[in-house]
Amino acid sequence: MEAKLITLITDFGHKDPFVGIMKGVIFGINPSATTIDLSQGISPQDVLAGALVLRYAVPFFPGGTIHVAVVDPGVGSSRRPLLIESEGSFFVGPDNGILSLALEGKKISRMIDLSNKLYHLNPASTTFHGRDVFAPVAAYLSLGIPPEDFGTTVHDFAHLPWPEVTKTGGALVGKVIYIDAFGNLITNVRDRDVSALHPEKPMISVAGVTVEGLASHYSSGREGGYTALINSWGLLEISSFKGNAQLLCGAKVGDEVLVRNSQESEQQAQAKI
Amino acid sequence: MEAKLITLITDFGHKDPFVGIMKGVIFGINPSATTIDLSQGISPQDVLAGALVLRYAVPFFPGGTIHVAVVDPGVGSSRRPLLIESEGSFFVGPDNGILSLALEGKKISRMIDLSNKLYHLNPASTTFHGRDVFAPVAAYLSLGIPPEDFGTTVHDFAHLPWPEVTKTGGALVGKVIYIDAFGNLITNVRDRDVSALHPEKPMISVAGVTVEGLASHYSSGREGGYTALINSWGLLEISSFKGNAQLLCGAKVGDEVLVRNSQESEQQAQAKI
Amino acid sequence: MEAKLITLITDFGHKDPFVGIMKGVIFGINPSATTIDLSQGISPQDVLAGALVLRYAVPFFPGGTIHVAVVDPGVGSSRRPLLIESEGSFFVGPDNGILSLALEGKKISRMIDLSNKLYHLNPASTTFHGRDVFAPVAAYLSLGIPPEDFGTTVHDFAHLPWPEVTKTGGALVGKVIYIDAFGNLITNVRDRDVSALHPEKPMISVAGVTVEGLASHYSSGREGGYTALINSWGLLEISSFKGNAQLLCGAKVGDEVLVRNSQESEQQAQAKI
Repeated sequence: MEAKLITLITDFGHKDPFVGIMKGVIFGINPSATTIDLSQGISPQDVLAGALVLRYAVPFFPGGTIHVAVVDPGVGSSRRPLLIESEGSFFVGPDNGILSLALEGKKISRMIDLSNKLYHLNPASTTFHGRDVFAPVAAYLSLGIPPEDFGTTVHDFAHLPWPEVTKTGGALVGKVIYIDAFGNLITNVRDRDVSALHPEKPMISVAGVTVEGLASHYSSGREGGYTALINSWGLLEISSFKGNAQLLCGAKVGDEVLVRNSQESEQQAQAKI
Repeated sequence: MEAKLITLITDFGHKDPFVGIMKGVIFGINPSATTIDLSQGISPQDVLAGALVLRYAVPFFPGGTIHVAVVDPGVGSSRRPLLIESEGSFFVGPDNGILSLALEGKKISRMIDLSNKLYHLNPASTTFHGRDVFAPVAAYLSLGIPPEDFGTTVHDFAHLPWPEVTKTGGALVGKVIYIDAFGNLITNVRDRDVSALHPEKPMISVAGVTVEGLASHYSSGREGGYTALINSWGLLEISSFKGNAQLLCGAKVGDEVLVRNSQESEQQAQAKI
Repeated sequence: MEAKLITLITDFGHKDPFVGIMKGVIFGINPSATTIDLSQGISPQDVLAGALVLRYAVPFFPGGTIHVAVVDPGVGSSRRPLLIESEGSFFVGPDNGILSLALEGKKISRMIDLSNKLYHLNPASTTFHGRDVFAPVAAYLSLGIPPEDFGTTVHDFAHLPWPEVTKTGGALVGKVIYIDAFGNLITNVRDRDVSALHPEKPMISVAGVTVEGLASHYSSGREGGYTALINSWGLLEISSFKGNAQLLCGAKVGDEVLVRNSQESEQQAQAKI
């Protein structure tokens, strides 16, 4: 059995040793594991951000990768620890929705409640399942232990609602779902949503800013202005070339984004909605 | 000889290439080394925080691990660079106390002053022993060079005082020793200190806040309130569910924490002290 | 062919999964690659800082290392993606100068415009060449694909101007070129520039602060004061022992630094300039 990658997403940050401790547990069990930090900088308890980071990272990992995601405010409560196998890859984390966006539309082969304490640290704490449950399970899984050995099969898991884009008249109404460290405003409006709109030149409005047309790359825009483009996740994004769109316009996650035909006024588009 | 893990604790942060440069030196000497970041985010010159991070991470690493800790304001001065072997693991760093809390109560097999310049970069700077002394020593050690080859045996090393919990009457008086990135207030009061107190329901006071009873997990508390629990390091911790206890109450490292019987007023407990 | 190291410098930060995604692409192509973060914390679009980090890290990596540097505000525009081979090591990144300071004075064996799309992800985005171009090229290169297979040979690349130190009368005039996370002010004045000056005790002035003489190590200075020394990169640096020189004096990158003979007043030195 070849070595598998283990990726880690947490809200533990980089100041404390919590992620390093998880790696100590992993390498203690499987010295030939390879771990990759997807993000340890998720905002505390921001399960949605963790789920989005996982969703858009998974397609770039080889089959067989084990993805561990621990944004887990309910650690130690009755929320279940889960292992899900889907299309040849593995997802390990709390059953709070953090795994759900990456699994949307995917075939699920197995869902296991990690109830077999043989594969946990002993004793396990009630406050750090990243160390005591998820890290050792991922490590034993990377050694080739079959998924069903880790606990009992279950038949559902918690889903975060994917914020849907609505279409009214000629306009799309979406939301800002993620803001990256550059201050780029990433929306839930997909490439194909915009294509389906067929406007000659879409007008994109968010947080009081309106951008006309889609650019092909960041430096198409002028410094200090705004640019809209389809980003590397296939999503509509509003950015500011060599600037920070979030700081410039004050947008935040959850803000509405409106995409309409340039022949139509914002009032007309909103009236239709 | 099998490959060994090398862990790294520094106050170098993530903006500058200093940690990456240390890894370049390590992999140049031992291409099959595995390095793990325990924390590169220790506050500048905070030797105590580095020592605590090391202490609570070490138990989760396999035997034979080489722990390198470089919070080293005295670099280039007469403070000695050390290698300590204890219970099958290795500790490399400046002799300023950073290694001491992890070694408390442990059997020490060897203490070496890293005086053999054959295993340093040549020339070695006086400002970056992480790169020029500690990284190459850790790498050569991971190749199987015996500890005594790195320098002369010494018989003591600098100790940080472990802040002791005092007991007066029915009350324990401890301190906040570490605050993590979630804002959780970690104290020096251990699980067994609280158990030895035998109160029906302990009252925990810190920074003007009083919490009644110990919770089993974070989400036992209500949002915006405070929760006390025994954390994953076996220490009494005050947290705020989905909040940041440090920001809420303004506590800082060194603040006093009082644990008393709920039948007793804070005044009575303090009068006894 | 033995495994090669792949180092990564980006301005992607640690909150988002962009660096982890690049590693997913790399390990998907070469499962036995070893990646090292040199810095993912370059300030957004700060090509000069990325180029300096690369320059001073490269000498500490073994021959054959593949250095990937992606600070790339022009991604998707006509700026070329490059692979440069120099003295047995490899440099991969956009042709915007980020590779140039590390290559100054070095023998260049090959310069390749990465025009062969066989080694890119397909389709490649116009916004994330780190993932779609530079990561796969580095991974295939680490597998032993010859450099010339990645595209067409070119004969020049973009150079950042290295800020030269000028000498007028007995004084050197340099600049602050980088400020590290400790707040140390790193200048372009080299060890040999200062030696060539032959002052008994150099007087160093920057941002309204004057320091007399060079110290051998940080703790030579008194807390709260300033110290000048030759740092681990061989450059003149102004620091404050257990303090943050940048915060204390307000210096910024680009500020002038003056090194003169202690027998000479600042006015005399400036008059000569």
